[in-house]
Amino acid sequence: MKINWILISVLFLSATLMQAQTLNEDEEIRYLKKLYTNILTQSPAHDWLHYLCKNAGGRLGGSPEYAAAVAYTSHMLDTIGADKVWTQAVEVPYWRRGPVEKARIINSKHLGAVDLSVVALGFSEGTDALGMSAQVVEVKNFEELEELGSKVKGKIVFYNRPMEVERLNTFHAYGAAVNQRTAGPRRASELGAVGAIVRSMTVKYDNVPHSGVTVFKDQKPIPAVGIGLKDADLLSSLLKKEPQLRVNIQLSCRHMGKRTAHTVIGEIKGSEKPDEIILVGGHLDSWDIGEGAHDDGAGVVQSMEVLHLFKRMGIRPKRTIRCVLFANEENGMYGATEYAKLAKKKGENHIAAIESDAGGHTPVGFRMDAEASIAKESYARVQKWRSIFSSLGVWDIQPGGSAADISRLKDQKTVLFGYRPDSQRYFDYHHSERDVFENVHRRELLLGGGAMAALVYLIDKYGI
Amino acid sequence: MKINWILISVLFLSATLMQAQTLNEDEEIRYLKKLYTNILTQSPAHDWLHYLCKNAGGRLGGSPEYAAAVAYTSHMLDTIGADKVWTQAVEVPYWRRGPVEKARIINSKHLGAVDLSVVALGFSEGTDALGMSAQVVEVKNFEELEELGSKVKGKIVFYNRPMEVERLNTFHAYGAAVNQRTAGPRRASELGAVGAIVRSMTVKYDNVPHSGVTVFKDQKPIPAVGIGLKDADLLSSLLKKEPQLRVNIQLSCRHMGKRTAHTVIGEIKGSEKPDEIILVGGHLDSWDIGEGAHDDGAGVVQSMEVLHLFKRMGIRPKRTIRCVLFANEENGMYGATEYAKLAKKKGENHIAAIESDAGGHTPVGFRMDAEASIAKESYARVQKWRSIFSSLGVWDIQPGGSAADISRLKDQKTVLFGYRPDSQRYFDYHHSERDVFENVHRRELLLGGGAMAALVYLIDKYGI
Repeated sequence: MKINWILISVLFLSATLMQAQTLNEDEEIRYLKKLYTNILTQSPAHDWLHYLCKNAGGRLGGSPEYAAAVAYTSHMLDTIGADKVWTQAVEVPYWRRGPVEKARIINSKHLGAVDLSVVALGFSEGTDALGMSAQVVEVKNFEELEELGSKVKGKIVFYNRPMEVERLNTFHAYGAAVNQRTAGPRRASELGAVGAIVRSMTVKYDNVPHSGVTVFKDQKPIPAVGIGLKDADLLSSLLKKEPQLRVNIQLSCRHMGKRTAHTVIGEIKGSEKPDEIILVGGHLDSWDIGEGAHDDGAGVVQSMEVLHLFKRMGIRPKRTIRCVLFANEENGMYGATEYAKLAKKKGENHIAAIESDAGGHTPVGFRMDAEASIAKESYARVQKWRSIFSSLGVWDIQPGGSAADISRLKDQKTVLFGYRPDSQRYFDYHHSERDVFENVHRRELLLGGGAMAALVYLIDKYGI
Repeated sequence: MKINWILISVLFLSATLMQAQTLNEDEEIRYLKKLYTNILTQSPAHDWLHYLCKNAGGRLGGSPEYAAAVAYTSHMLDTIGADKVWTQAVEVPYWRRGPVEKARIINSKHLGAVDLSVVALGFSEGTDALGMSAQVVEVKNFEELEELGSKVKGKIVFYNRPMEVERLNTFHAYGAAVNQRTAGPRRASELGAVGAIVRSMTVKYDNVPHSGVTVFKDQKPIPAVGIGLKDADLLSSLLKKEPQLRVNIQLSCRHMGKRTAHTVIGEIKGSEKPDEIILVGGHLDSWDIGEGAHDDGAGVVQSMEVLHLFKRMGIRPKRTIRCVLFANEENGMYGATEYAKLAKKKGENHIAAIESDAGGHTPVGFRMDAEASIAKESYARVQKWRSIFSSLGVWDIQPGGSAADISRLKDQKTVLFGYRPDSQRYFDYHHSERDVFENVHRRELLLGGGAMAALVYLIDKYGI
């Protein structure tokens, strides 16, 4: 009799445990809609973004603005009741934009002197007060540059390959054009060029210049600017008629050496499997023009919202939910690299990592990435949640590149999820003075937080 | 031998015909991407919208602004090479907003006199120069109104039920709240009320008032206004403390009797089955505040774009593609009713009708509707195109209500498609001064034209 009771108990327990793992789609949809209702009616994330944009503002790693963002988000993670909040210090190269950013055509026979709409690219060299003048030579790509070879010596190289507006996903168009900005000035410098002008990375046809990092590595930095599309086309048209065209560039930006920046971390400890960490994050730094609203203030407050939502709704997660706001994504990813190094050193087990770094627009889906040994199984599991996500308007879940910061965790058997919103407007704002709070739509931002929270909720409940 | 040849010919012909109907997904995706490239690089639709918004402007059926829109779109349909362009006249009731639209609380003990942010609802009665003053009584719904019954006599009824922000699709929230505006003032008038104030139909929390039609039928019209959300909440808060609160309403709007408005039609004749018509359209009229940019300038230019695209790309359709810009959707749908009546009279065969009247945002899908006898079969056919549409980002194709104007064709065995873009921003603008050209995003608008053109292309090629 006794044995029988134990057997029955064991069977009952097993059944209960199995039931806990059995997916009841309708029930989960009902629950997640409740969760969305809570977000749409009670989330403070939009207000957090307002504070971050208006009180810290544009915030390159190492800047006082960045330090203000660290102080604010640490304080808020504490206020919303994270079990633990801490920071990770990391050394970052610090570069500061100055008040002078000018470029002008100085010798056009058709137009005389013409001011151009430009901004310094990150890590550009500065100039003295009268600037640097040189002849301009236009290329569309690196092949054209290599053909010119030493002919660019003493000149300004003008990279003018447009983003392909016909790509339905604007990130694909960005990926196909951005090497002009990241690597163009370095290669020009290697060939003896004294400056670089890069067509802005945008599909909106206007004259707003866009910044972003340019990487010189050990190469001598040269003055390098992003130019608005209208002025890029003007310059290109003039060059066809007047190949002797000269441009003067004046930049008061400066390399400031090393500074310390902090990655901000807050977590809710798991009740059953505290050692299994589900990371949700974005990067806290941003470009210094604009306010880093879409890139990546949106990702920051959406990640904080996931924690706050679990607290607001009284959900005690089985696993640890950790919000990570990475330092220095924009110019070197030192924060993410340090975070991954420490995680490995401490033997932490990140079962999943979700990053939002593609803007605060209406959610569309996720891109999943993982080591080959676990990729198939984890993707198959997420496929089972497909109709749940569809009911929330999140329809596009596919394998693919995830996001920059969390990619550092890939070799630690972490399943990576890059959150994907609608991409149509993103590059209107990206790295420009237009990336401000007013251009983030409250509902769209909150729905993104909802999509991320839903994924965290399902991973926490069912594993990955 | 002879018979054998005939047999072979018949078999060959059948095989050829069958082949023409066989769906090659990859090929269609490749072709439709070409079509999208053409749209994203060459479509003038955004410029058309600019003209319509800035030169015709807000355009209620029967107004001079509406006549300007008829002239412009007729001219453009002709210019882009439609085989035939014509108009259909229809009598519409004409109401005109005046320069005076004011409401103020006049006797608050807490705040004294307080101006409220309001606009007249369409078909509201006007007042004399000093306006009409009465005590205000708040209700959330018709049940509360009926309970009050004759107690509202001589008073202003204040409908204050919010749109439910937690609905993921904002059109569902609109559908659940809009009867306050369409039928609220009439029922209030029936019960003897002398005015109505209606909480604006929006999920954006600000103080911008939204208009829209209110229908009195044979009931005596009373002054009726839409009120901004912040002032609606202020009024509601004050009423809790001061139930004797009185509001003065001043409106210089006027009923102007009957006018003639025109539905604009342009078509490309089909080469093989000219009698089978695929209709693509929107409504040309709009509310008079704002510029009718999203509602429904977007649908107008997207529909024109479908025709222009076929011409630009040299696609000769097998069936007739007809662009219909309906008169008077906003206040009575007389244009659509007349169009359907004439189609029946002439024995026209509309095999499908696609309407865009949900804004110019990023495409999401279509809602399909048809008579029961053909619904299942047509839906099954469209399901086969699902992965083609997914590759274009158009993922949400389901049975459901289509769109107002084309619904008039339902009993003529027409398969109806309501085009659906992302809904998150739509009611920020809808029927308010914010519905202007600047709030329509070029790429999003063009992608909507692409989704509609893709559907027209597939229906033309494969039937429905």
